[in-house]
Amino acid sequence: MLTRIDHVGIACHDLAAKIAFYESVFGLTVVSMEVNESQGVREAMLQVSGSPAGNSYVQLLEPLGPDTPVGRYLARRGEGVHHVGYGVADITAALAEIGATGVRLIDERPRHGSMGASIAFLHPADVGGVLTELVQAVADGR
Amino acid sequence: MLTRIDHVGIACHDLAAKIAFYESVFGLTVVSMEVNESQGVREAMLQVSGSPAGNSYVQLLEPLGPDTPVGRYLARRGEGVHHVGYGVADITAALAEIGATGVRLIDERPRHGSMGASIAFLHPADVGGVLTELVQAVADGR
Repeated sequence: MLTRIDHVGIACHDLAAKIAFYESVFGLTVVSMEVNESQGVREAMLQVSGSPAGNSYVQLLEPLGPDTPVGRYLARRGEGVHHVGYGVADITAALAEIGATGVRLIDERPRHGSMGASIAFLHPADVGGVLTELVQAVADGR
Repeated sequence: MLTRIDHVGIACHDLAAKIAFYESVFGLTVVSMEVNESQGVREAMLQVSGSPAGNSYVQLLEPLGPDTPVGRYLARRGEGVHHVGYGVADITAALAEIGATGVRLIDERPRHGSMGASIAFLHPADVGGVLTELVQAVADGR
């Protein structure tokens, strides 16, 4: 079902500073920047690798304010890995399969994610403490 | 410098139960199991994808006891993402480059990691709260 590690989502206080860090220390490059008002984040996608199975990214996330999911995460746990996103070819089918196992779906239906992808989150309490995201990228599921 | 997301390392209390979960819910398959005494963990590698740039895995980690890095992590933060591992073609060169930026190296020299890889950790306080691992897999750097 999972086709790749699509991205690691990393919560940070200062997006510009963290982008500069990942660029200078690890040689990554920003391929997309977006503000997602519904998720309350400003984000940057830095590509790590590309393959026929799809690309992998470091996703840097800065909250738009303290009363957002990432803002609350930062207040509670500090900077660090916020979630893991896995590629899937058919997110609707994947959600149905996963929901049937009893794992609670934060998103019953896919919604808009980075770079035009369809995404959905699974409840971390049902995935061993890992906020887990499914990602059907624009290039997936053709 | 980074060639792929090699793995996401996930700390758990019960390795067998978590393997069964990732197999049944996400359809992943265990490709390697090891005990790493020096790191104080029992671990399983579940392959997510393979490509010419190298494979990507979910790495499940169960501590050998409470007084180990993963044991202390679980006591402090509970189950969840423990670290992120990135592939590199030449880990010795990567460590020299990264060390020159001022990021502190937990491992000044590579040591033995999963599946015969050479690995080294960077200090999370210098990488925005993310315990970051470099991985030169057996298939890398040829």
